[in-house]
Amino acid sequence: MDVITDIATLRRRLAGESDIAFVPTMGNLHAGHLALVELARRHGRCVAVSIFVNPLQFGPHEDLAEYPRTLAEDLDKLADAHTDVVFTPDETTLYPEPQTVFVEPPPISMELCGATRPGHFRGVCTVVLKLFHIVQPRIAVFGKKDFQQLHIIREMVRQLDLPVCIVAGETVREADGLAMSSRNGYLKPEQRIEAPRLYRTLQQVVQMIREGCHDFARLEMQATESLTRYGWTVDYISVRNARTLLPATPEDGTLVVLGAARLGKTRLIDNIEFAL
Amino acid sequence: MDVITDIATLRRRLAGESDIAFVPTMGNLHAGHLALVELARRHGRCVAVSIFVNPLQFGPHEDLAEYPRTLAEDLDKLADAHTDVVFTPDETTLYPEPQTVFVEPPPISMELCGATRPGHFRGVCTVVLKLFHIVQPRIAVFGKKDFQQLHIIREMVRQLDLPVCIVAGETVREADGLAMSSRNGYLKPEQRIEAPRLYRTLQQVVQMIREGCHDFARLEMQATESLTRYGWTVDYISVRNARTLLPATPEDGTLVVLGAARLGKTRLIDNIEFAL
Repeated sequence: MDVITDIATLRRRLAGESDIAFVPTMGNLHAGHLALVELARRHGRCVAVSIFVNPLQFGPHEDLAEYPRTLAEDLDKLADAHTDVVFTPDETTLYPEPQTVFVEPPPISMELCGATRPGHFRGVCTVVLKLFHIVQPRIAVFGKKDFQQLHIIREMVRQLDLPVCIVAGETVREADGLAMSSRNGYLKPEQRIEAPRLYRTLQQVVQMIREGCHDFARLEMQATESLTRYGWTVDYISVRNARTLLPATPEDGTLVVLGAARLGKTRLIDNIEFAL
Repeated sequence: MDVITDIATLRRRLAGESDIAFVPTMGNLHAGHLALVELARRHGRCVAVSIFVNPLQFGPHEDLAEYPRTLAEDLDKLADAHTDVVFTPDETTLYPEPQTVFVEPPPISMELCGATRPGHFRGVCTVVLKLFHIVQPRIAVFGKKDFQQLHIIREMVRQLDLPVCIVAGETVREADGLAMSSRNGYLKPEQRIEAPRLYRTLQQVVQMIREGCHDFARLEMQATESLTRYGWTVDYISVRNARTLLPATPEDGTLVVLGAARLGKTRLIDNIEFAL
């Protein structure tokens, strides 16, 4: 496994590879990430993983400084997962000068997570586009846990005619249902016990919809109230069309219920996609 | 010479080419464009030219509808110039749905031509990025006549880590000095006689600077007044650092004097780069 920190060396290493499957990450790898690497392995002959905590996608009051950095452990896990190339640039490698050219993401970027994280998806799209230009993968793998991010990346790829095929990996969960996330590590023991309620609440919304309740606004409100009673600060619970991410209608074929809520300072997100 | 209108066919045609030199154009080709094709020929084994009048870079009151379209003549000229592949998409090929993902260009895009053409460089960068993703050239050729555009494209390529080398082609001029431009065709006979004054005025500014006059603001004002007296509506005359496009200082090594001015409804631009 080659661990490469600079762009020129990476380009040389990948120059002869015509079938690269790429997994961009922010490190602190868990079983969810490793499932994406597995998926990459099945889709491409050369598996490249990037580890970069991208400052451009963090707001001024967000957790950029505290975000867990565990490079040595990450590299062990990636070696065990038969990764071919790991790209671990530092900030001055990807941003040698102040970034003033960005991807302007689609309007859906202002909703859901974008409503409480202004500029987040602009930062995500910009770094992903840069990484695509550097790695030049044939396919790239993103997790469904970040459902809105996956949707926006697909939009970017389609509208900018990027020669990259996006593959989505299923969310990996702990035994109690909590979606795996690097931010779970922020949770205090009592918060960790409470945390799976986000997923359970989304499951209840799905069940109600499947049982015929199509008053989505009421379901969203009830789920929000329920979480709030248990000490959560809810950013949103939202029922959407899974293809367009527009607010759902009973005529939609595939829906997704998405939620973002905070326990203390820790912000968790989750979602469930389902056929109506 | 292969003339291709759709993206999938173009990708197939170019799939085996590893050394593509690309010249994006809006058609209505003149000797200036053909010099860029020549330059591409010298830099790459496969010369690809696109012809596409990009609606995204025209303002609502600009000349999108009138912009000259001369495809048959253009193809003859490109065949004579030994072009390998011409990409002539229509609007629905490049924009099959309303474009909502854009390149946000650097702040310099709001100045000079950007001040009177809001959104212009956003449209230019977005279509050029799309074309780069479709054609995947090793090098791309742009003319120095559109000096600010060339500067912004270079910024985009550098900041987005595009694997494309930008090559600049010299401005080609008519015998009387007028920079070749598709928009010269809009000029009435008496305007055509007047038109070279823009270049002569820029030459006078350069001469004054070389003679030691470093009061750039005064030179810009005098040049503007002079053109105005001859019936021009001046958008700007500006002395800039040729590397950064920031306002020039006497300490800068290489300067550029840029001008944009209208004769009637026809907007002409020109520039002269020179060492101080």
